[in-house]
Amino acid sequence: MTTPISEAPPPADSHRARLHQIIFEADTFAGRAFDVSLIVLILVSILAVSVETLRDLSPRTQAVMVVLEWVLTAIFTLEYILRLVAVRKPLRYATSFFGVVDLLAILPSWLGLFVPGAQALLVVRVLRLLRIFRILKLARFLSEAERLTHALRASMRKIAVFLLTVATIVVIVGSIMFVVEGPENGFTSLPVSMYWAVVTLTTVGYGDIAPRTPLGQLLASLVMILGYGIIAVPTGIVTSELTAGRFQHGVSTQSCPSCSAGGHDLDAKYCRVCGAAL
Amino acid sequence: MTTPISEAPPPADSHRARLHQIIFEADTFAGRAFDVSLIVLILVSILAVSVETLRDLSPRTQAVMVVLEWVLTAIFTLEYILRLVAVRKPLRYATSFFGVVDLLAILPSWLGLFVPGAQALLVVRVLRLLRIFRILKLARFLSEAERLTHALRASMRKIAVFLLTVATIVVIVGSIMFVVEGPENGFTSLPVSMYWAVVTLTTVGYGDIAPRTPLGQLLASLVMILGYGIIAVPTGIVTSELTAGRFQHGVSTQSCPSCSAGGHDLDAKYCRVCGAAL
Amino acid sequence: MTTPISEAPPPADSHRARLHQIIFEADTFAGRAFDVSLIVLILVSILAVSVETLRDLSPRTQAVMVVLEWVLTAIFTLEYILRLVAVRKPLRYATSFFGVVDLLAILPSWLGLFVPGAQALLVVRVLRLLRIFRILKLARFLSEAERLTHALRASMRKIAVFLLTVATIVVIVGSIMFVVEGPENGFTSLPVSMYWAVVTLTTVGYGDIAPRTPLGQLLASLVMILGYGIIAVPTGIVTSELTAGRFQHGVSTQSCPSCSAGGHDLDAKYCRVCGAAL
Amino acid sequence: MTTPISEAPPPADSHRARLHQIIFEADTFAGRAFDVSLIVLILVSILAVSVETLRDLSPRTQAVMVVLEWVLTAIFTLEYILRLVAVRKPLRYATSFFGVVDLLAILPSWLGLFVPGAQALLVVRVLRLLRIFRILKLARFLSEAERLTHALRASMRKIAVFLLTVATIVVIVGSIMFVVEGPENGFTSLPVSMYWAVVTLTTVGYGDIAPRTPLGQLLASLVMILGYGIIAVPTGIVTSELTAGRFQHGVSTQSCPSCSAGGHDLDAKYCRVCGAAL
Repeated sequence: MTTPISEAPPPADSHRARLHQIIFEADTFAGRAFDVSLIVLILVSILAVSVETLRDLSPRTQAVMVVLEWVLTAIFTLEYILRLVAVRKPLRYATSFFGVVDLLAILPSWLGLFVPGAQALLVVRVLRLLRIFRILKLARFLSEAERLTHALRASMRKIAVFLLTVATIVVIVGSIMFVVEGPENGFTSLPVSMYWAVVTLTTVGYGDIAPRTPLGQLLASLVMILGYGIIAVPTGIVTSELTAGRFQHGVSTQSCPSCSAGGHDLDAKYCRVCGAAL
Repeated sequence: MTTPISEAPPPADSHRARLHQIIFEADTFAGRAFDVSLIVLILVSILAVSVETLRDLSPRTQAVMVVLEWVLTAIFTLEYILRLVAVRKPLRYATSFFGVVDLLAILPSWLGLFVPGAQALLVVRVLRLLRIFRILKLARFLSEAERLTHALRASMRKIAVFLLTVATIVVIVGSIMFVVEGPENGFTSLPVSMYWAVVTLTTVGYGDIAPRTPLGQLLASLVMILGYGIIAVPTGIVTSELTAGRFQHGVSTQSCPSCSAGGHDLDAKYCRVCGAAL
Repeated sequence: MTTPISEAPPPADSHRARLHQIIFEADTFAGRAFDVSLIVLILVSILAVSVETLRDLSPRTQAVMVVLEWVLTAIFTLEYILRLVAVRKPLRYATSFFGVVDLLAILPSWLGLFVPGAQALLVVRVLRLLRIFRILKLARFLSEAERLTHALRASMRKIAVFLLTVATIVVIVGSIMFVVEGPENGFTSLPVSMYWAVVTLTTVGYGDIAPRTPLGQLLASLVMILGYGIIAVPTGIVTSELTAGRFQHGVSTQSCPSCSAGGHDLDAKYCRVCGAAL
Repeated sequence: MTTPISEAPPPADSHRARLHQIIFEADTFAGRAFDVSLIVLILVSILAVSVETLRDLSPRTQAVMVVLEWVLTAIFTLEYILRLVAVRKPLRYATSFFGVVDLLAILPSWLGLFVPGAQALLVVRVLRLLRIFRILKLARFLSEAERLTHALRASMRKIAVFLLTVATIVVIVGSIMFVVEGPENGFTSLPVSMYWAVVTLTTVGYGDIAPRTPLGQLLASLVMILGYGIIAVPTGIVTSELTAGRFQHGVSTQSCPSCSAGGHDLDAKYCRVCGAAL
């Protein structure tokens, strides 16, 4: 979560310091404007990549998309160069996660000039969307995101036990249904049967594979009710963690030196029962 | 949430005051009867609009619907005029949200006399259903609705972080599945692929698009289990907020007479900030 | 929840008292044996009714089902007569909810002797399954069922607000999708469109109707994510209520007369802070 | 949850003690390496069984799978023999749950030499996956798994009431839909109708059976919204239990020296039952 690239700018080189403030920080008006513009450009870029994959595009739209792709590539290339200039240790930025993502986001277009089939690599641009989180991190959303990730991390082991249970159920249920329904009812192999088990347990239920024998339908019903109950477990874990986090923020473990009453708020300076200083 | 149109009636004009009491308030018997009749008429109106779109209607039923539409339009027009009369500042009502909705609800029928294709506008009537909330607001449901909206608003930022995470997952998963499955398996374009990702992540699972390659099915299984876990997050957020709201009732509304700090526990006898007696 | 029919048996008529104890109560061995046998017979009866609706039954199986139906009808008729005999006020039992259900459960078979198409009425037998709850009520499950129903009833008004919100969303979303997708894509009428909205919002997702236009798929994606978030609300309500119920059982509102510390357990007789009697 | 087979090794026979430490325990480096290797081999074995069920396998892949199956069977047979040697009471291990599973996991391959159709029994190998839990039990995941299972066991009776309610709703809804939709719309029999009810209530929604009549679609919509609300109940139960378990940590394990009452708050200085100092 630490961002080693956004270190304090050098006091001497004021130009680079100003550039660093605009590109890497979001405290000034210019910095925030830069960040918001970047989000918009990234969204436009994803939209353009998406539209390009649509069939039945008119030649004119295709031409617009090609131009748009090159304009955005130019802007992102300029941005990448500016980022390299703005930090005091460019190599450290270039090898950081976002440095690599920034490079990968512009490389496919340039590679396309020499290598014909670079179109497939354009999907890498999607990773640029992750930058939204870096931008958000600089904003006030940090604390909320941290509380959510903290709650998830605190229940990591419970979630691991839960996922293992789900995996075991999927394998066992998949095997049983493979034997019960068989290839003639769409359960063509054990992996496909397990895929069906996941689709059913998670209540997604595509319907591309569905039990047709009475016994299969009975077993599937039991699996669904099981999945219905199992979905309660991760919810319970996360909720319990979030609720606990909320209460742990609020109550100190200190007890009053005068009347020994406990459960004071964290910011309490005087005992709420007897008024003595804590 | 404030209703600027339900202001105290003028003491002089007693007729208008009485009308205002019936139409805008729900404290008297006449006012409550008016509100309940209105809800019934709105529901009948929505039912009539719905039935009109049904195919294979007999000419007789169609005639009944046309008559019903005009009767309801007449009633709602009368109601709109009465509302304009009942308030002291008609323009303020006419430009308020519900004033515009009330007008839009009757306009399509009248426009249909001059413009032929006004049938498509009839759908606007649906907005009239929102009036149920205004009527409810006058009743005892207000506090419950407010607690729910308060819990949702308090967790706005957490929900924003959550939605951004979901959006990022959808874009990344959609891109990967587009490459893995390809147009020949129904993933015809990147937007369609993202649509599939939303359908799967939210556990809706229509089955109009479903992975067919083994690798696609494996990836889809992982996405489903991910969605299964992700569904826990909004639940956890709302539950945590609702539970906290319940416990915050344990916080008194009293503020310290000495330092005016608020948020004291219900059993607090001394200010936790300055130690003064409450 | 009160069972007016299980009143104290008359001290004089010991035969009827014994019968009442066996049929209506579950405290003695005989009473419990009667209740368990009844549950088993009800389940067998439901199974028989279910099997009868299966197609392609061999004539032999059909004959077995006919015999089974008559045996069970005879047993349930005998049980009904015994219930009438066992209570002091037979009319009061006969007009109670379970009295009517018990009668309806045996009537279709007897009516079938005179009226040919009584087969359709056999479905009424399903209501007999509700008796399981009466039997359970006499057992130790009562308190758990009561806590659940109490939690649901306590959040009745919140749930009403929630259902109204869902209904409004369904009507508005259904109308928009009817206009966007139209009859040619399966959204044949406004009611069908609303049915689709319910199927999508609740994350059921049959796939019998699915959006096909890009705009429809975009709107559907938003509805799904909305439904994903909305599902959190009832969960939050019930969880909050259940958690609160748990804590309200545990802490008394009494504060210590000596040191005024609060938050004592309900069974506390002495202050946990200063040791004074409460 | 106790593992009677991992008893203290005999002090005399140091070879067997060392073997026991490696195979049954996970405290030493060798023991942990053995456990991790075993997990990997079990996963490979399940993968191999899964791949074998895939259609259109090249003869070469089939040959590889046959060899792999025999190599793994040899390793697991050796492991089984070593386990019998390592424990002091081999019969007690052989008749324990994991002893039987270990035997069943290797038997089908050996039986296949004499009985041709032993392929169907290969599915039994899936049970070997359960060993992951035994291995995990020896690790630090035990406490988390225990907290989850404790939370589930504590709410057993509430879950039973919930499942009964769901079963009753399924039977009643299934019966009504069978009458409303009938065999011509896919609701071919009462059991199939109930299967549909489970698919809908649990929000799985395959779409293999879907209501087609307007009345059926209306009823189905109500069932979906009901299912939407019902899904909140198990979540509420588990969450409430998990949250409560967390707060019960605030209860000290100390019992009163005077009256031996337990369950005191962490900050309690005096017994809440008899007032004696703790």
